[in-house]
Amino acid sequence: MSQTAISEKDRETLQKILSLAEDVTKQIRKRRDPQVDIPVRALSNVTFNERKRIIEMGRRTSQRQLFNLSQAKSFMQTMLVASGVKQLLMQDKTASIRNLFYMLKHTIKGIKEETFNDQDECDPIIEDMEVLISSLREELHLAAESRGAMVGNIILNDSGDEIDCSRMGSGGYAIPSIVEPNKIQFQKCPAAFVLHVEKGTVWNRFNEDKFWKKHNCILTHGAGQPPRGVRRLLYRFQNELKLPVYCLLDNDPWGYYIYSVIKQGSINLAFESQRMAVPEARFIGLRSIDFKRCGLSDSVKIDLNDTDKKRAKQIAEYPWFAKKKSWQKEIALMLENGFKLEVESLVSKDISYVTEEYVPQRLKEGNFLD
Amino acid sequence: MSQTAISEKDRETLQKILSLAEDVTKQIRKRRDPQVDIPVRALSNVTFNERKRIIEMGRRTSQRQLFNLSQAKSFMQTMLVASGVKQLLMQDKTASIRNLFYMLKHTIKGIKEETFNDQDECDPIIEDMEVLISSLREELHLAAESRGAMVGNIILNDSGDEIDCSRMGSGGYAIPSIVEPNKIQFQKCPAAFVLHVEKGTVWNRFNEDKFWKKHNCILTHGAGQPPRGVRRLLYRFQNELKLPVYCLLDNDPWGYYIYSVIKQGSINLAFESQRMAVPEARFIGLRSIDFKRCGLSDSVKIDLNDTDKKRAKQIAEYPWFAKKKSWQKEIALMLENGFKLEVESLVSKDISYVTEEYVPQRLKEGNFLD
Repeated sequence: MSQTAISEKDRETLQKILSLAEDVTKQIRKRRDPQVDIPVRALSNVTFNERKRIIEMGRRTSQRQLFNLSQAKSFMQTMLVASGVKQLLMQDKTASIRNLFYMLKHTIKGIKEETFNDQDECDPIIEDMEVLISSLREELHLAAESRGAMVGNIILNDSGDEIDCSRMGSGGYAIPSIVEPNKIQFQKCPAAFVLHVEKGTVWNRFNEDKFWKKHNCILTHGAGQPPRGVRRLLYRFQNELKLPVYCLLDNDPWGYYIYSVIKQGSINLAFESQRMAVPEARFIGLRSIDFKRCGLSDSVKIDLNDTDKKRAKQIAEYPWFAKKKSWQKEIALMLENGFKLEVESLVSKDISYVTEEYVPQRLKEGNFLD
Repeated sequence: MSQTAISEKDRETLQKILSLAEDVTKQIRKRRDPQVDIPVRALSNVTFNERKRIIEMGRRTSQRQLFNLSQAKSFMQTMLVASGVKQLLMQDKTASIRNLFYMLKHTIKGIKEETFNDQDECDPIIEDMEVLISSLREELHLAAESRGAMVGNIILNDSGDEIDCSRMGSGGYAIPSIVEPNKIQFQKCPAAFVLHVEKGTVWNRFNEDKFWKKHNCILTHGAGQPPRGVRRLLYRFQNELKLPVYCLLDNDPWGYYIYSVIKQGSINLAFESQRMAVPEARFIGLRSIDFKRCGLSDSVKIDLNDTDKKRAKQIAEYPWFAKKKSWQKEIALMLENGFKLEVESLVSKDISYVTEEYVPQRLKEGNFLD
């Protein structure tokens, strides 16, 4: 297989995989017990970096040894994942984590044991590989299910095709799972900011009203909890294009949580925050004050249930919300209200109230939660 | 509000709504009890049309009266939905069914009753409206969450923007929820067929390998069970462009079910089959013979559970499968195998086996299930 076609970034990642393999074979040649040191991905090894405002992993590692009954299988699996990723990089192809699982699953010669019993056994090893060689899984050529779409004043190049997001009709550009710079380059971006909305149906309203044209922005959605591709793209918008990112989400614990993941990263995948989190993101709404501020009717209230109340209290204690008075006030008011509000409920004022009044008003006032 | 900007089709739909309203007011003026006759949407009023090979509604209707204690509320809701849809059509805007619910939900003057308590109360009334005036909900300007993407040799016009699906990079064109001809026109289509795959991750493999370029086709996915927009688009590909539609789905009851919905329509929404079902669709795989035919290893088998077995037997009894020997054989063999197979499992042969061997071979042989 030729390596000539692969990008510089891929060559770098490949080099890390090869170094890992060389390190193990070197140990074997020296007749040492082969092992790798894997950064600990537990909550106990995660901190919130106040200055950078992202979740970060600590420096604790744990050993994974071949000649250790409880670690032998995961050691073997780690080497298998490394070899699978190497193959993907050398062929310049991407695969889903399901694909990788099937690529690597087989009955081990001589015994009846499977290399992996199920996907759940493979996924943590992929995450180990990410932290082991400090590469995002997208850099390992591993894709997830993609969700979400984009329109707006930006022209990008995706795998050699020029995509003008201001001419994408009602459907939009489907945001792929892997949006790394060797695949997607920003060619021209007159847009002044990004508006990220929670749901496709809300995105439709903004696109139909040509909000992005009137307000010179980029419009994205993630079909609920934004998938990795969308988060990584928002990260690139903030970091490479220096665009402010405003989030329009529901006034409920789930909306708060989505904002938290976009802004600080996911606790389970803390090691990725450095290149996925968007600490400058702003929460444009819906806010707990909106019931009064927008003069909504009782009919649009949705009562908080016990799970909502419990989740709201948990989220209030996240380190990045705990020290912010504005967020403490926001969450306390929702609990005091006793109800939640969906973005869609603004339609009760007027079908285009959200695009013509609500968001323009917040942008004009500069009124956001941080 | 001006009606000048709305399309001919919308004007037609609007006219049906106005006729409905005039009919009711005429009854009132004649001092009759106002009522509407609504086609029955129950399974008892559904048949499989052998000739057209789609599910169809029968002619049974039921009366919905204002002066009837058990029907007064749904009569009022029917009129409300009609007025909401009229507003959307006149403003030339689309809304999600969630939006429509919020547009119409309010406390009725003088009493403390809500027009709709929750979405579940609104959805069936929307379906009533569809059958009442023989319009798809898309024609009523009602959108669903969109899912799925498309690439390939077709140029279309979406709301005034030219979308060249052969230049859509790795992401693709996000298939919108509403793909009606007044929104989306096919401009040029050199493609010879459509390949519809179940999942986005499989679609990625086909797009990355530029399958659609080599085989001159259109490539779509629906992120699982294809949403209405995708099904309606496949319908238009078959009917307007006369393109064969091949489906690549998992070898499991869920894959069979997806094929059934694409091909014959959903039993719950039988009235839509006439303009959503794709009776000419072909099932390209995976087939129960593929474990042997492709020489797969035991490692990729997934045991059928009790639910799988039950579902498989139910699907075998669907009228459009019951009379087909090929499908009876297919389902019987899966039950005999005792396992199911995912499309992703073909990667165990080679990462591009599915795009370079499996599908090209089936196309060459003309080997499909009908």
